[in-house]
Amino acid sequence: MNKVGIAAYGITPFTKEDKKIETVLFESAKNLFENNLNIQKDEIDAVLVSTNNNSKYLAPVLSETLEIQPKTAHSIENLCNSGTNSIVSAYSYIASGLADMVLVSGAERYDSPGQILEWDNSRGEFKHPIFWASIFTSSYKRKFSVTDEELAMVSVKNHKQAQNNPNALSKKMYSVQDVINSKKITKDIRLLDCSRSCTGSASIILASENIMKKITEQPIWISGIGQKTISAGFTKNESFYSMESTKTATHAALQMADKKIQDVDVAEVHDAFSVCEPMALEALGLSNPGKGSMLVKELYETNNLKINPRGGLIGCGHPLGATGIAQTIEITQQLQHNAKNRQVENANVGLVHNMSAAATSSTILVLEK
Amino acid sequence: MNKVGIAAYGITPFTKEDKKIETVLFESAKNLFENNLNIQKDEIDAVLVSTNNNSKYLAPVLSETLEIQPKTAHSIENLCNSGTNSIVSAYSYIASGLADMVLVSGAERYDSPGQILEWDNSRGEFKHPIFWASIFTSSYKRKFSVTDEELAMVSVKNHKQAQNNPNALSKKMYSVQDVINSKKITKDIRLLDCSRSCTGSASIILASENIMKKITEQPIWISGIGQKTISAGFTKNESFYSMESTKTATHAALQMADKKIQDVDVAEVHDAFSVCEPMALEALGLSNPGKGSMLVKELYETNNLKINPRGGLIGCGHPLGATGIAQTIEITQQLQHNAKNRQVENANVGLVHNMSAAATSSTILVLEK
Repeated sequence: MNKVGIAAYGITPFTKEDKKIETVLFESAKNLFENNLNIQKDEIDAVLVSTNNNSKYLAPVLSETLEIQPKTAHSIENLCNSGTNSIVSAYSYIASGLADMVLVSGAERYDSPGQILEWDNSRGEFKHPIFWASIFTSSYKRKFSVTDEELAMVSVKNHKQAQNNPNALSKKMYSVQDVINSKKITKDIRLLDCSRSCTGSASIILASENIMKKITEQPIWISGIGQKTISAGFTKNESFYSMESTKTATHAALQMADKKIQDVDVAEVHDAFSVCEPMALEALGLSNPGKGSMLVKELYETNNLKINPRGGLIGCGHPLGATGIAQTIEITQQLQHNAKNRQVENANVGLVHNMSAAATSSTILVLEK
Repeated sequence: MNKVGIAAYGITPFTKEDKKIETVLFESAKNLFENNLNIQKDEIDAVLVSTNNNSKYLAPVLSETLEIQPKTAHSIENLCNSGTNSIVSAYSYIASGLADMVLVSGAERYDSPGQILEWDNSRGEFKHPIFWASIFTSSYKRKFSVTDEELAMVSVKNHKQAQNNPNALSKKMYSVQDVINSKKITKDIRLLDCSRSCTGSASIILASENIMKKITEQPIWISGIGQKTISAGFTKNESFYSMESTKTATHAALQMADKKIQDVDVAEVHDAFSVCEPMALEALGLSNPGKGSMLVKELYETNNLKINPRGGLIGCGHPLGATGIAQTIEITQQLQHNAKNRQVENANVGLVHNMSAAATSSTILVLEK
């Protein structure tokens, strides 16, 4: 099997701008090529577009805009983990020998149709993700005797970390009290507990070992992949205070990479809502059950950027189709020691956790230098 | 690289029924599992859904409906060749070792949003595929001095062949005169020159060599894959009387399979409109330029079912996301000698041609026993 790695990346600021999806998509790819002039565009074998947007044929549209004529081109959608699904697809194209270089571009508009879970009737008309997050929050707080203030620390930490990320949507820091005082949306969720939908895109080039040498002296390799789909419906989760799909995917990814979770130096985890970060840390095995928010507090107090250095979904905003790719770019920059004032020291092994719809599905990637 | 083949399939009738996409999708997968009771559902590693439908998270929805919990699940869209793009993706997952068994299910409703090419302004407000087909038809007729009657033979042949396909939308045969007398939609296209949008689904299981042995004694192997994307816009085509993306993809697929076009015993070609069948035959190398409609006439007169034995898109109907999969199922049945009264004699090597939007992109698959 061919070795597959990340050769280049491009990204846009995450904003609330009203732009056509084709424009948004193009911008991160343009940024990628402008910063990597040594890429031979005509050697790109496949263009995969990650989005929840309803526009069709976006991969050929992007290809035409970029003046490339790939073999393969198509869009991939799986809600909030569309991005890592696309990266795994690109990996498989290269590992199988069907492609040597693949462009993966993810984009979303602030008004993405992926924000309403139309098929999931388990909460009646309450189909926005906020409602599963509210049930997760009340369930998690009850099970582990965790307080609103402890969960608010996730938002405080990630908004703070986002201030070192020029592309993040959030331009402000908040205190625990600010989070608690922010608008109450449900009994257990406040406005500042939520990642915000936004407009943005992220692009990445995956390449085989042969191509890699021609593009970068700092290749980052994908050494582990784990994925798990439990269901599409929220109520099929085994519990509302743990992420079972994340556990399964983590086990598979670490096994493939021949690593232990303790080997991971830096991780992007899918903090769609405050409660998701401790739940993810616990599912990954970085914390014991119910102790995730204590780890968050400790990281915050020691200024340790190990978890969500770019500011997470809460700090960066969450353009669905772009998020998993933006997470992967952050880990790439960390492992290349290019993360500037977000840099985690001695980052050699990184992990991406990207999930959809109340962790009914999860993707884990392990990245290494 | 792992060998990859087709282990099982299921299909629904193609109709004008008004059903939810989730129901349509489920029906062909149900048909597949009912006819293949020896498949261990919990060994399915990935579920890929091929569709242009705007519903999100359909692969987890289908998985839940089927009571399976795959690793990977996502939707794939590339207009009319979404189906073969999904098959190629499934191939790469297995060939790379990330999966051993993949379910690919394609479905569409008669009112698919993929029927309007919103992004392509080259014909102003005339964004339905009929308008590029009309320009292809006038251009092809002028270039090669072909008549409306000669092109009408495609529709006559494929409607006739569809009568042996219980799942086909068409239940009637037509004469050349019927086609010519049918409603004129543009200067060069009549109603019976068009494939019709419809509701239907098709599912297929791809498997590695190890899994294959447990499922079927008649494995059909994917020995060649070729894909090419020229553009998203009609006017970027090199000419309007030839399919350049099909030529490139055919060359690549035959090379990978180490076959010549003369080795192909049976082929499904993408006859979205009458003119597309001779153009495809010419791009494949089965006919010289401008001579495709003569080959169609010859096949019809000698009752040779070699091209589009199931009735093509014109006879079967064209549920966008299901079409490429239905084409692949037909070739599988032909190579297994299970095609009943559609059977082509001595069928050992088969080919699928599936394309999108005026052949701006094409996929070619070579299948073998």
